[in-house]
Amino acid sequence: MKVELHELSDMETAPTFYPVPGVRLGVAAAGIRHPEHRERSDLALIELAAGGNAAAVFTRNAFCAAPVTLARRHVAETAPRYLLINSGNANAGTGAQGLQDAVECCAAVVGLTHCTLPQVLPFSTGVIGEPLPVERLTAALPAALATLAEDGWSAAARAIMTTDTVPKLASRRFFVAGQEAVVTGIAKGAGMICPDMATMLAYLATDLAVAPQVLQRILEEAVADSFNAISVDGDTSTNDACVLLASGTHPTALIGDATSPAGRALAAAVAEVCQELATAIVRDGEGATKLVSVEVEGALDRREARQVAYTIAHSPLVKTALFASDPNWGRILAAVGRAGLADLVIERVRISLDDLCIVRDGGRALDYQEQAGRAVMQRKEFAIRVALGRGAATARVLTCDLSYDYVRINAEYRT
Amino acid sequence: MKVELHELSDMETAPTFYPVPGVRLGVAAAGIRHPEHRERSDLALIELAAGGNAAAVFTRNAFCAAPVTLARRHVAETAPRYLLINSGNANAGTGAQGLQDAVECCAAVVGLTHCTLPQVLPFSTGVIGEPLPVERLTAALPAALATLAEDGWSAAARAIMTTDTVPKLASRRFFVAGQEAVVTGIAKGAGMICPDMATMLAYLATDLAVAPQVLQRILEEAVADSFNAISVDGDTSTNDACVLLASGTHPTALIGDATSPAGRALAAAVAEVCQELATAIVRDGEGATKLVSVEVEGALDRREARQVAYTIAHSPLVKTALFASDPNWGRILAAVGRAGLADLVIERVRISLDDLCIVRDGGRALDYQEQAGRAVMQRKEFAIRVALGRGAATARVLTCDLSYDYVRINAEYRT
Repeated sequence: MKVELHELSDMETAPTFYPVPGVRLGVAAAGIRHPEHRERSDLALIELAAGGNAAAVFTRNAFCAAPVTLARRHVAETAPRYLLINSGNANAGTGAQGLQDAVECCAAVVGLTHCTLPQVLPFSTGVIGEPLPVERLTAALPAALATLAEDGWSAAARAIMTTDTVPKLASRRFFVAGQEAVVTGIAKGAGMICPDMATMLAYLATDLAVAPQVLQRILEEAVADSFNAISVDGDTSTNDACVLLASGTHPTALIGDATSPAGRALAAAVAEVCQELATAIVRDGEGATKLVSVEVEGALDRREARQVAYTIAHSPLVKTALFASDPNWGRILAAVGRAGLADLVIERVRISLDDLCIVRDGGRALDYQEQAGRAVMQRKEFAIRVALGRGAATARVLTCDLSYDYVRINAEYRT
Repeated sequence: MKVELHELSDMETAPTFYPVPGVRLGVAAAGIRHPEHRERSDLALIELAAGGNAAAVFTRNAFCAAPVTLARRHVAETAPRYLLINSGNANAGTGAQGLQDAVECCAAVVGLTHCTLPQVLPFSTGVIGEPLPVERLTAALPAALATLAEDGWSAAARAIMTTDTVPKLASRRFFVAGQEAVVTGIAKGAGMICPDMATMLAYLATDLAVAPQVLQRILEEAVADSFNAISVDGDTSTNDACVLLASGTHPTALIGDATSPAGRALAAAVAEVCQELATAIVRDGEGATKLVSVEVEGALDRREARQVAYTIAHSPLVKTALFASDPNWGRILAAVGRAGLADLVIERVRISLDDLCIVRDGGRALDYQEQAGRAVMQRKEFAIRVALGRGAATARVLTCDLSYDYVRINAEYRT
């Protein structure tokens, strides 16, 4: 049932996902970034059948993009019929004109589909501060509408990519009251050296019928342990958004309680899809060569566990050591030390690379051989495990290394 | 009177500093890092005349190195006679053995000089987690003692270097009660992409006689606006330390009040020396090609002004844009937006590169031409100025860009 990631990176030949009844996706090449380059799609349209509803979470950045402002307003008003997503231009830092441009794009969808304005949610990702090419975008809308199809997930996953090197798609099938139900999602995002790196967009859908407040709760819980476990709370980009659609085409009754069997089954599937997409984003980190899970245990509470995990995961010194496969445990221990924990007793801290203990009692483990540490760090995926010896709380953050390519990608992004 | 930085980077031919009566410095090549490499000094000894006293500030990292633990203990007990500094090994993460090693090194100084153990302050910088080679270090002590001289500042500045590419030295001469007084200082430190980058060590001395609590206050105030304005409060490395010695050989009376004319003159000179050394550290940032001053104004209070300045200065996205001379103001504005300011009105934010306004009213300034922005960013030194439009508080943080060389230096540090 699980869609393996290695299949995803080879999706052309193995587009493994389950379509969601009541949800159709279409794409078009609008030439948003460069009018003359239209060899790849940069516009995606997601259509939700009438009677469906949606939950959404957005960036907490005070400097949020125009489409975020508008989408937040629209989704609070009514259930959406269309999500309009463009890559190539973030429509951020564009002031009042940017908001007007986002409205115009939504209005163009209204003109072609006869829905109402608040039923269209706009999303943009790409370069900040350039005016959105509204004419090129709206001119491509009929083409996107013409391609709407329930098997459009893979094409939409490609259309929303920016610096991503692979499209990201995950899908789960499960049973509710003896009937097959589906959760399928796509995401884009690749800059994970730090949470302000790049926009993260994710769109999930299920065919179940779900009460709005239940849908919102399920989405928020799934995001906390996935997309927000690769990105500090509140420390997001200008355009981040994650939407969960429920088409309600499934024959079972409305899910009105998140703790009912159907609610729990849906929550589990949404959580799994979010985690798979979040992992794919880190794995595709700009210039990343390694996927590293920072796992903290023995903290007094979840807040301090996350604090330690993030301090390690964000340290450029730790990240360059990861890139070099250098088991420089001093850099990890120094990050633990400066994470701001009151009364931390460093002598109780234990650090392991996967199952290899490298630090015990605040110093190098006596039986530790650097060669063994280097061997773990040469793996493509491994865990940095930190035991604080203070309590029972845990946290896990996914990160990647800091390579030459990270600098290259981000120094050359606009050129 | 001012020692120009371009002279410092060429110190071999222009060692411009004022010796401090009552303070002598000696160096030796102990082969701390590699026993077979002794072509450069890696041990410095600073001697303070009897009757002098000292102020000191240390890292707030919970995981502090053995020498920091010991130096903190010693300086609380009595005025020092000797500061013993080695590069090549940080003696951090070395547990109980590390503390024992630091004590042994201090004891060796006691044996050769007949001071008491608390009169020796140890400092180490270099690789974390390797045992300190005590024998090689102590074997080199007689050579360091033999070279003690009042003009040893330049040699000592070189001996404490690690990834530094230039020695850092600053000096001021001023008049107190009609008599010439001096403040001279040296520092090491080069990793400034983020405050956990590398150890910062700084040693200053004056010939004035100063009451201990006045000396401590003057040092703390100078550090807040210099070394701590290139490094987040409390977010320091395992070994950071800054010491200010007062030999008391100057003929004027003891300075017992920081607000007296003599106190103010000393405070100004110490502040200038600290700022010059801190600037030299950023300028020598690992892989840095540009020196950038992040200047925030219009904040409600100093805390939030610093918060915004640090968020910009620490953003890898901003730093890679600096490296590329790419006036990507969206990344700067996004950093302002995620700095965690309550009720920030992005539409009031103004951003300039030196005197060129690039963002006004939360969007690109209408008269801004990207070519002009690029021209400013191609300068070796420039300011990012942010006006928040909320109040009257200001802050300034020095930073540098993030280059390929930063990754190279930190990925290869131990190899």
